[in-house]
Amino acid sequence: MASVTIPASTVEHLPLTLSGSESQKTADISTLELKDNEKTSLLLRTFRCLIADLCEQFKGGHPGSAMGMAAIGVALWKYVMRYSPENPNFFNRDRFVLSNGHCCLWQYSFMHLVGYKNMTIDQLKSYHSKRTDSLCPGHPEIEHEGIEVTTGPLGQGIANAVGLAMATKHLAATYNKPGFELVNNKTWCMIGDACLQEGVGLEAISLAGHFRLNNLIVVYDNNQITCDGSVDLTNTEDVNAKMVACGWKVIDVLDGNHDVEGIVSALVEARASTDRPVFINIRTVIGIGSKVAGDAKAHGAAFGPEDVANIKKNSGFDAQQFFHIPQEVYDYFASVRGQGRQFEAEWDQVVSAYSKEYPELAAEFACRVRGDFPKDWADIIPKKEDFPTTPTPSRKSAGLVCNPLAAKLNNFMVGTADLSPSVNMAWNGKVDFQNPDLRPSCGISGEYTGRYIHWGVREHAMASISNGLAAFNKGTILPVTSSFFMFYIYAAPGVRMGALQRLQSIHIATHDSIGTGEDGPTHQPIELAALYRAMPNLQYIRPCDSEETAGAFIAALSARETPTIISLSRQNLQQYPQHSSREGVLKGAYVLIEEQDADVTLIGVGAEMVFAVEARNVLKQQGVKARVVSFPCHRLFEKQNLEYKAQVLQYRAGIPRVAIEAYAAMGWERYADAGYSMSTDRFGHSLPGAEAYEYFGFNPTKIATEVQSFVAEWKQRGPEAFRGEFRDLNKTHPSH
Amino acid sequence: MASVTIPASTVEHLPLTLSGSESQKTADISTLELKDNEKTSLLLRTFRCLIADLCEQFKGGHPGSAMGMAAIGVALWKYVMRYSPENPNFFNRDRFVLSNGHCCLWQYSFMHLVGYKNMTIDQLKSYHSKRTDSLCPGHPEIEHEGIEVTTGPLGQGIANAVGLAMATKHLAATYNKPGFELVNNKTWCMIGDACLQEGVGLEAISLAGHFRLNNLIVVYDNNQITCDGSVDLTNTEDVNAKMVACGWKVIDVLDGNHDVEGIVSALVEARASTDRPVFINIRTVIGIGSKVAGDAKAHGAAFGPEDVANIKKNSGFDAQQFFHIPQEVYDYFASVRGQGRQFEAEWDQVVSAYSKEYPELAAEFACRVRGDFPKDWADIIPKKEDFPTTPTPSRKSAGLVCNPLAAKLNNFMVGTADLSPSVNMAWNGKVDFQNPDLRPSCGISGEYTGRYIHWGVREHAMASISNGLAAFNKGTILPVTSSFFMFYIYAAPGVRMGALQRLQSIHIATHDSIGTGEDGPTHQPIELAALYRAMPNLQYIRPCDSEETAGAFIAALSARETPTIISLSRQNLQQYPQHSSREGVLKGAYVLIEEQDADVTLIGVGAEMVFAVEARNVLKQQGVKARVVSFPCHRLFEKQNLEYKAQVLQYRAGIPRVAIEAYAAMGWERYADAGYSMSTDRFGHSLPGAEAYEYFGFNPTKIATEVQSFVAEWKQRGPEAFRGEFRDLNKTHPSH
Repeated sequence: MASVTIPASTVEHLPLTLSGSESQKTADISTLELKDNEKTSLLLRTFRCLIADLCEQFKGGHPGSAMGMAAIGVALWKYVMRYSPENPNFFNRDRFVLSNGHCCLWQYSFMHLVGYKNMTIDQLKSYHSKRTDSLCPGHPEIEHEGIEVTTGPLGQGIANAVGLAMATKHLAATYNKPGFELVNNKTWCMIGDACLQEGVGLEAISLAGHFRLNNLIVVYDNNQITCDGSVDLTNTEDVNAKMVACGWKVIDVLDGNHDVEGIVSALVEARASTDRPVFINIRTVIGIGSKVAGDAKAHGAAFGPEDVANIKKNSGFDAQQFFHIPQEVYDYFASVRGQGRQFEAEWDQVVSAYSKEYPELAAEFACRVRGDFPKDWADIIPKKEDFPTTPTPSRKSAGLVCNPLAAKLNNFMVGTADLSPSVNMAWNGKVDFQNPDLRPSCGISGEYTGRYIHWGVREHAMASISNGLAAFNKGTILPVTSSFFMFYIYAAPGVRMGALQRLQSIHIATHDSIGTGEDGPTHQPIELAALYRAMPNLQYIRPCDSEETAGAFIAALSARETPTIISLSRQNLQQYPQHSSREGVLKGAYVLIEEQDADVTLIGVGAEMVFAVEARNVLKQQGVKARVVSFPCHRLFEKQNLEYKAQVLQYRAGIPRVAIEAYAAMGWERYADAGYSMSTDRFGHSLPGAEAYEYFGFNPTKIATEVQSFVAEWKQRGPEAFRGEFRDLNKTHPSH
Repeated sequence: MASVTIPASTVEHLPLTLSGSESQKTADISTLELKDNEKTSLLLRTFRCLIADLCEQFKGGHPGSAMGMAAIGVALWKYVMRYSPENPNFFNRDRFVLSNGHCCLWQYSFMHLVGYKNMTIDQLKSYHSKRTDSLCPGHPEIEHEGIEVTTGPLGQGIANAVGLAMATKHLAATYNKPGFELVNNKTWCMIGDACLQEGVGLEAISLAGHFRLNNLIVVYDNNQITCDGSVDLTNTEDVNAKMVACGWKVIDVLDGNHDVEGIVSALVEARASTDRPVFINIRTVIGIGSKVAGDAKAHGAAFGPEDVANIKKNSGFDAQQFFHIPQEVYDYFASVRGQGRQFEAEWDQVVSAYSKEYPELAAEFACRVRGDFPKDWADIIPKKEDFPTTPTPSRKSAGLVCNPLAAKLNNFMVGTADLSPSVNMAWNGKVDFQNPDLRPSCGISGEYTGRYIHWGVREHAMASISNGLAAFNKGTILPVTSSFFMFYIYAAPGVRMGALQRLQSIHIATHDSIGTGEDGPTHQPIELAALYRAMPNLQYIRPCDSEETAGAFIAALSARETPTIISLSRQNLQQYPQHSSREGVLKGAYVLIEEQDADVTLIGVGAEMVFAVEARNVLKQQGVKARVVSFPCHRLFEKQNLEYKAQVLQYRAGIPRVAIEAYAAMGWERYADAGYSMSTDRFGHSLPGAEAYEYFGFNPTKIATEVQSFVAEWKQRGPEAFRGEFRDLNKTHPSH
């Protein structure tokens, strides 16, 4: 399609000649009060001028698409979405996701118009201001009421919406009974052209089609403009045909600028979909009414005072009147609040009647709504003596811990990016999350009640959809994802957004370090732990045996506003039942093996603990006394006080500390004087795990030799000589 | 589709009744020597038994799809691909990418059969062995001859192949002349079900369709099995319809197990596509011939000795004869080498005639083939005095440096993930890389000769396709990507694979740190630098002004086997023409402002240099002498000797070092005793850049106060008291 330029004057043309009853009750098309053409015109004009003014005041922001989406907003916020502005947390509300998050001013402004109490005109004016308490950040943020998820990184909003819709499907299938629709909300997701280009959006679309999420409606603001210009520069595919191929119903709206009735009609049709998610392709003009209408220039910059004045004049307003909202516009939206109260009242009645009919289920449901785990969840976790004492891969230990939790805690929704046989997360009796209607056609099993999710090979969508599951109602669902640790580099943008939103989730990352073996450097993480150790509000935990794995799960379940990555081995690990401690894991690090008058502290981590312990034995024979610290989690250790830290690491005693881990050393400099680690000059090597370790110098004798020599030098020259020179002790770095 | 189980006996049924001439010259269907049904049967049986044996010897590997793809391999390696086994680097060879890299044994075995010299039977047997010099790692690796790109992380192979095909298109459009086809190779990409689920694959598919890459053929090994089982568990879309919607030609092959003729026919038809990329959907049975044929169990494990013996028996071989390849099979493939020599000879003739007709172009082409830059490239970079001395955003400085380079060095192919107006990489006179046939229909400009690429909002594909561009012939194309730094978390899997493959590229990452401002925490990187500083073979450089930006480009261009991220500010930065130095950047860190008898070393970095310099001024007034070190790149600094490091950081002088950077502190502990940085407890905040800095305590007076107090304590207690207690000096961490 060629780019479109719309003369500014067209903003006034609103070809609406609608009629309908005044019933407020539902989003049925018959409720439209759009028959008053002038009033609708007034509100679209008001809305667009408000956006132009709000961006102009601080010369920034994203006015174009917010203006282009005005009519869509009227349709959604006034006529179709079911929510309660006075109680943004109404449980059965429709969820709304703004995947094109830069258009947040559009959402904030409608929230203001429909009466979200905190979203005052004063708050609207704080957009792009210096106010630190603004409810109008540059992208929507979950901590502000009425915002379901934080969006911004494009494409992820679609995935979040898929998660929200899956949550509804799951809760409905689990708790609804004939005549009792406890949960039946829809999820609406607004997207722009870019969201359809991002891989995570495409992954999520494919999966939503597969799961036949008929409660998900994606509304496409099709303005054919991105930052670089026409979408034709980069995307000339047949979007509708692609969506149909992915199992979606497609509805077209040709005039999204003015045809509020047409949009409402499409949204209402979408709401009624019985068998598949719906994609509504609505043509709009970016920056409509401005001089740069239909142009990329309307995307991410204010229009300048002259154009804004013109927009207002052409809209019939006083150019010198700013942020003007006529009372008629407020009046127009006033009914939404009453409607919201009614939705709430109706739902309360359903809950009340349900509680009488199904008291046990109702109690369970109430527990889910509160987001509680059963009080005795920690008792479900195996005790130290329940674990095998023979060498065990920690991915197997994780299964031993997680499977009984998943079986008993119905908050758990556990999934894998196509690695069921490897990650051990499938518990006995697990039911797959699937659309049951799919079963006859393809021979798979599953129900929407199921809590085991086959994500396919879609790591990024897995993480981002899981954020939607967790955000549906904090605590109601605890998503557990799983894959090889290396592939959490695909999932990283989603993991980050989970941490940023303070959404609890557990990521089971198996096959960590070079111990993963033959798959080679593409599968052997070297540097990825550095990302996750540095990531705010994320716990990256590498347990060294089964007992520590139990500790990792306790830490993960206890952190109700923090996601956790549990990083696990493919290969067998020695068990240290005499020494290892789940309580120690909760402190981040602890003394695994103490030693009087020690010469050195060896820090062992996760799958490489064996090298620390065995090097200690070799050193002992050589007359060097080494104590061993287990250090599964930086973040948890940082929360301890200085005294504890000093006691564990013994740096005040003047003895050196050596961290032993088959990753890049970065991050250990804070806790150690030297590292026996991987070079950051090269990646791993395809070899069986044991040989890969050997190849890169992970051998107790070699380690002991280097440590002994380091300790000798330390004693000779004194600690001060080593200040500022973190030592890399591993000299076995085969060149690439 | 339901999962299919094929009785083992069907492996013998080869319904081939072909005829054709014996001409060896081209891949024309008429060249098929498949009329000898028995011989074809023999080679398929031989191939599958070989795979089964090779996986069985070390009880691992991926036999199933390698066996299922046997007939596809015969068609590709014997009949259709144009290459020269004896000269794997023949410039105009068809490129082959194994996106389902776990099937590498399939590729290695065909390379052996067609006569790649180094790929001996002994090497084949080294698959999954302890041999450190194996040419058969668990996934194909670019450093071994005959392998075009390293694959493994699924989906990326498609993107690599798109890059290779774009390289051909670009070089052909630039150098070919009527009658002289210097470059006309095809790119073949083998994929499995998973590659079609990964977002990066979907992004690349969309873009390949847009660019109308008729020289790209994706061959889909459609066995409907992934690790978890039937693809129906996770993907029930209409793949062919989706590909058509994306602008691809689709060809179906219904029996990919036996119908070599049908496959060849499809491949030949694909080779002839004039207007679009081709997707060949070939149905195969994973692990065909084994007891687990058609089952996920055939994917990633050896079959066990009993089943392997049965496979061999059913194939008419002696169960006790291992790795058996009858001479007839070698004879069958013998002609490929002669054909390859002929391809080379023909190409040499073309080059020779071309050199006479177009001597200047030929010289340029030869330079491109060698991968040379013009000798005087460094002279193109502006001198210090050419830069503005007024505050300048480093993203603008980057434009001043890169634009003239891109204009003059035809190796440069510069692109952006839809941020042209923000990243300043579009030079005057740049031509877009586009299919010219597209122009009339959509009003965009461009040619395949173009060297400016609109990637769309597809960061991961941008990075992974760029790896393909760089891998076409090392040095011929230098890809420059660009986006906001935060979105390089989407691109990270591709950036990593570039570093792993030692492919030179430059990533222009603008809007770094919280200075990016109003877009808020979703756009403000805190932890991402930690990933890239820890990533092997990657240079992450944060220049502090224009002069250092010049240095960053010199470092990037000089590193012919290393990708570089140049991390740049959105906002204006002070310039330090009296102090900053491009040569200093090449050393990673250097003294920006020296001071006799200093009390403290302040380490300034990139956009936050201003805080170090201004804090120094405040400290001066307070009687504290601070020297300032500029530290743009950890990796480059690590390459310096200890003396240089000690001189720059002055830690041997016993004065403390404080790193000032608005990122998570992780990584600075190696170089500093304290950090004035961002907390890792929380992400950023939506505020204008200056206010965001202020909000998080980045204020010269505050910094000076904390530094002064730290220095006083240091003097009082002595350096040793601080050992092991890296100090976080920034106490202004507003809670979330």
